[in-house]
Amino acid sequence: MLKLYSFGPGANSLKPLLTLYEKGLAFEGIRLNPAKFEHHEDWFKAINPNGQVPALVDDGRVITESTVICEYLEDEYPTEPPLRPADSYGRAQMRIWTKWVDEYFCWCVSTIGWERMIKHMARALSDEEFEEKVKRIPIPEQQVKWRNARNGFPQAVLDEEMRKIGVSVRRLEARLAESEWLAGDRYTLADICNFAIANGMQHGFAELVNATDTPNLLRWIEAINQRPAAKRMFAEVPFERLPQPKEAEATA
Amino acid sequence: MLKLYSFGPGANSLKPLLTLYEKGLAFEGIRLNPAKFEHHEDWFKAINPNGQVPALVDDGRVITESTVICEYLEDEYPTEPPLRPADSYGRAQMRIWTKWVDEYFCWCVSTIGWERMIKHMARALSDEEFEEKVKRIPIPEQQVKWRNARNGFPQAVLDEEMRKIGVSVRRLEARLAESEWLAGDRYTLADICNFAIANGMQHGFAELVNATDTPNLLRWIEAINQRPAAKRMFAEVPFERLPQPKEAEATA
Repeated sequence: MLKLYSFGPGANSLKPLLTLYEKGLAFEGIRLNPAKFEHHEDWFKAINPNGQVPALVDDGRVITESTVICEYLEDEYPTEPPLRPADSYGRAQMRIWTKWVDEYFCWCVSTIGWERMIKHMARALSDEEFEEKVKRIPIPEQQVKWRNARNGFPQAVLDEEMRKIGVSVRRLEARLAESEWLAGDRYTLADICNFAIANGMQHGFAELVNATDTPNLLRWIEAINQRPAAKRMFAEVPFERLPQPKEAEATA
Repeated sequence: MLKLYSFGPGANSLKPLLTLYEKGLAFEGIRLNPAKFEHHEDWFKAINPNGQVPALVDDGRVITESTVICEYLEDEYPTEPPLRPADSYGRAQMRIWTKWVDEYFCWCVSTIGWERMIKHMARALSDEEFEEKVKRIPIPEQQVKWRNARNGFPQAVLDEEMRKIGVSVRRLEARLAESEWLAGDRYTLADICNFAIANGMQHGFAELVNATDTPNLLRWIEAINQRPAAKRMFAEVPFERLPQPKEAEATA
């Protein structure tokens, strides 16, 4: 049986989770706790040496990288509904969107998310505990990101990331004003992979994502949330509960 | 007939060029001159609003993003030889490598390349000419990169990029020590897309890529250069001749 190692149904973990639910594929979900840094523990690094979720295991073979996992599921399990356009041009458009979310959109949203949430997790640890955790992170850039999160990202970085989030939101809105779905008239991995980042921005970034400025983006977020597969996924796979600012500081 | 807008046979332009030659697909090659900033001219931005090469036009439809173009060519023209593994797991491994070159390897090599070569192009222009050129670049991050190239990148940036190049070279060497090709026992888009960046490093980065430190990477670079399709491509598609430091400064 397929096994998926993941966090809760947000960001990169959401991509394969929602793809599995959309395709009706049975799988065993193994949930890691980011607040306990479980993805940097040795048992998990034996599965993915990068110490990153999600990771899919299919018949003993490990597939990593959330977007690659989604295409793998389409290649290996071509069950209904297809989540890629049938024609080559449509697939290319889909891949431009999945590439864009991985190279641009996800990073700016991630930095702000780390500043708002991971900072408190990192500050809840003593210096010794923090260094102990960071030492176990295999990717140097991720070590730097944890340190930045703990110290607070420089304001210039936060400003630049907010600018990019504005660019991203306007790009999605413009596309969704002319097309029901990102890669054309069919719901595809382009939508799933971008929804993974965009969902929740109507709350966390309401000054940018709202009925006045981005009616089409809101319509699309709502439409995906209303799909039976998404409803089932959110009902069955709980969100994380990360340490909140107050309690984190209380224990710091 | 397929039309490919590109620079010479290096970096991102090499990816679709070599793919077209490997698959024996006839195409009209339209060559842009980076030293004249032709990719930022209005006629080309009408084809790719991002002002970036390569861009493929197939029956009037434009496909952008070099890696996406390569997968498009495989999807639309499944002629021999196949440049993707036949099995889903192999395709996933191929995509991890094409994703990695686009998200990590190409960027560090690009910064050093810009520092070494584009700097002279940018300095060959007067302030007014430079501002005029920069104004026409559609992507803000590219504008910043041109300014950095002209001013010279900060040493801390160059050091970090050189560190990443070292990581990249060691990663390729380790993989090629255990496998003839990056995604397994068949030459695929993983090899083409990484070769696009790695080829020439045996000269430009000889302190890192050489017979002592990276024998397998060298073997792989040489093997791709010896393929009939690569030989034909390099014979028919000339390299650019960018302004050299001396002549650039002479006209500055």
